[in-house]
Amino acid sequence: MYNVKARAAFSPTANFKKTDITRRALDKKDILIEIKYAGICHSDIHTVRGEWGEVQYPLVPGHEIAGIVKETGEEVTKYTIGDRVGVGCMVDSCGQCEHCQQGEEQYCEGPHGHTGTYADIDKYGEYTQGGYSTHIVVSEDFVVRIPDNIPLEKAAPLLCAGITTFSPLNHWQAAGKNIAVVGLGGLGHMAVKIGHAMGAKVTVLSQTLSKKEDGLLFGADGYYATSDPKTFETLSNSFDLIINTVSAILDYDSYLSLLKLDGTLVNVGAPAEAAPLHISSLIGGRRSFAGSAIGGIKETQEMLDFCGEHNITPEIELISADKIEEAYERVLHSDVRYRFVIDTKTI
Amino acid sequence: MYNVKARAAFSPTANFKKTDITRRALDKKDILIEIKYAGICHSDIHTVRGEWGEVQYPLVPGHEIAGIVKETGEEVTKYTIGDRVGVGCMVDSCGQCEHCQQGEEQYCEGPHGHTGTYADIDKYGEYTQGGYSTHIVVSEDFVVRIPDNIPLEKAAPLLCAGITTFSPLNHWQAAGKNIAVVGLGGLGHMAVKIGHAMGAKVTVLSQTLSKKEDGLLFGADGYYATSDPKTFETLSNSFDLIINTVSAILDYDSYLSLLKLDGTLVNVGAPAEAAPLHISSLIGGRRSFAGSAIGGIKETQEMLDFCGEHNITPEIELISADKIEEAYERVLHSDVRYRFVIDTKTI
Repeated sequence: MYNVKARAAFSPTANFKKTDITRRALDKKDILIEIKYAGICHSDIHTVRGEWGEVQYPLVPGHEIAGIVKETGEEVTKYTIGDRVGVGCMVDSCGQCEHCQQGEEQYCEGPHGHTGTYADIDKYGEYTQGGYSTHIVVSEDFVVRIPDNIPLEKAAPLLCAGITTFSPLNHWQAAGKNIAVVGLGGLGHMAVKIGHAMGAKVTVLSQTLSKKEDGLLFGADGYYATSDPKTFETLSNSFDLIINTVSAILDYDSYLSLLKLDGTLVNVGAPAEAAPLHISSLIGGRRSFAGSAIGGIKETQEMLDFCGEHNITPEIELISADKIEEAYERVLHSDVRYRFVIDTKTI
Repeated sequence: MYNVKARAAFSPTANFKKTDITRRALDKKDILIEIKYAGICHSDIHTVRGEWGEVQYPLVPGHEIAGIVKETGEEVTKYTIGDRVGVGCMVDSCGQCEHCQQGEEQYCEGPHGHTGTYADIDKYGEYTQGGYSTHIVVSEDFVVRIPDNIPLEKAAPLLCAGITTFSPLNHWQAAGKNIAVVGLGGLGHMAVKIGHAMGAKVTVLSQTLSKKEDGLLFGADGYYATSDPKTFETLSNSFDLIINTVSAILDYDSYLSLLKLDGTLVNVGAPAEAAPLHISSLIGGRRSFAGSAIGGIKETQEMLDFCGEHNITPEIELISADKIEEAYERVLHSDVRYRFVIDTKTI
């Protein structure tokens, strides 16, 4: 067992406090990672606040983890001490079901489903604690390698924001297609960079044009304000694929009308409430309204390698652990360009 | 011009009355069809009642038309007098747009879209009148050939109920898959027969088990009552494809939970109101919620040939034109096994 430093929420509304948590002694396939950086994801906020179900406190969020291998269990074969590695939203899964066997652990059909990096119960019966911490112990099967040319602080957000957008772009084969990205936040700006590198023609659909310059710099070919009704006329029947990164309820019928015949609107964020849409918006154009969850471990490695090869990194704002609450407030106000990353030296 | 007999609605609520309508003189590519049988589709009722927008009265519905070629325009090449032919939901389209060129006229992107068989304005500026009539004039490009082994009265419902279910089963490649059909009415029973013939394993999801015997006879491998909550437990994560033929609002989240990873729920009927669903139902399992509209003319011919080859015909109840209102009431109460067809001798 390791006693390690962490920042934990002690209630849905309480400020984060310094605390010590324990990490399990290394099992045969386990790795002890010294966490260097941890990204802040909107999910962290939902979870801490109990908006996605009941959680236990103290709660250490964080599922965008980048660090260095410090120790390895006796049967670890994939990594050695000193390797630059990452951990994303999952730290385990049943390993036996059809989806795990196919490398789609995020859709694990085992009795428990996949084990979340935080706020979940792992196979040891322990409550998982995430990346706002100096160290974490994870099975090597849920650890990925960070390419040498990606700085660790920039690698962190790839572990959730990167894979969550790479996976649908990959699955729905964005290459060569006309795609739109709704929302230019942490996920959206990664979708633009990755979609562009895959060879898609990328259009950003954002509430206003305030981030237009950034969007074009990230590789977007077009940028439209969704607050302008003309946008929906101009772009009617235009896209093969729309990646919606906004988790607030939208006027889905309007967005569906932007799809070509057989086009798909993929949601990667989910509002808590039911989303209203007219089925006629789907029938006219044989359109699909779909969803996608993060990505499997194999695909996460592919994403990292792809980003390394194409020199794709997120835009980040590095913060000290004392600024977590402030960062949360700014995330809630979409005031981040484009992802907060905690420097764990300050934990 | 031809003066022909028809049954028309004179108001949203009025009874159908005998009337005479005119059909245009044959244009070069036109065919005069002596209508022998016309199916009654739920859409007829929605349209007559003005539920899908304003219409003009008198209105002659009917877009499941089977008959015999009586006369041909001077440039008609595909059909000759005496041929057994059908007309479905469309009688024209722009012919120029990408979708028309691909034989997907139902998704015509011309300024007008495709021209509906009734309650639409055609390129001659005339209000189209449908199949509850003794004759109709249609361009040969919107006429299909009925295989010899399909009786005309049984061919009629194939022109809408048949193609509306064949097209998504074909597009989403039902062959060899585990599929479910929601609702065992006019469309549902065709989906079962066609899906089974395509080589899918077919499960019917109906409100009750009252039609179970029929469903199994039509080729279903399983039959479950959706009024029984256990159905949704038993069949969780089971289907590659669900064809939803019910146009009332359902608990879509429950139906989506029956799909496997990457499964699709295709709606072929649309409620007027917005359909509520939780996007999390899509994200967990990378599922799609989709829609499909009838089918193109080429695909309609393929469907008829497929039905001929596999001896697939709908179950029908042949009625006289005096029973249209009664049939409408029974359709609204799901009291039809499984499609009403008007014998136009009685028009």
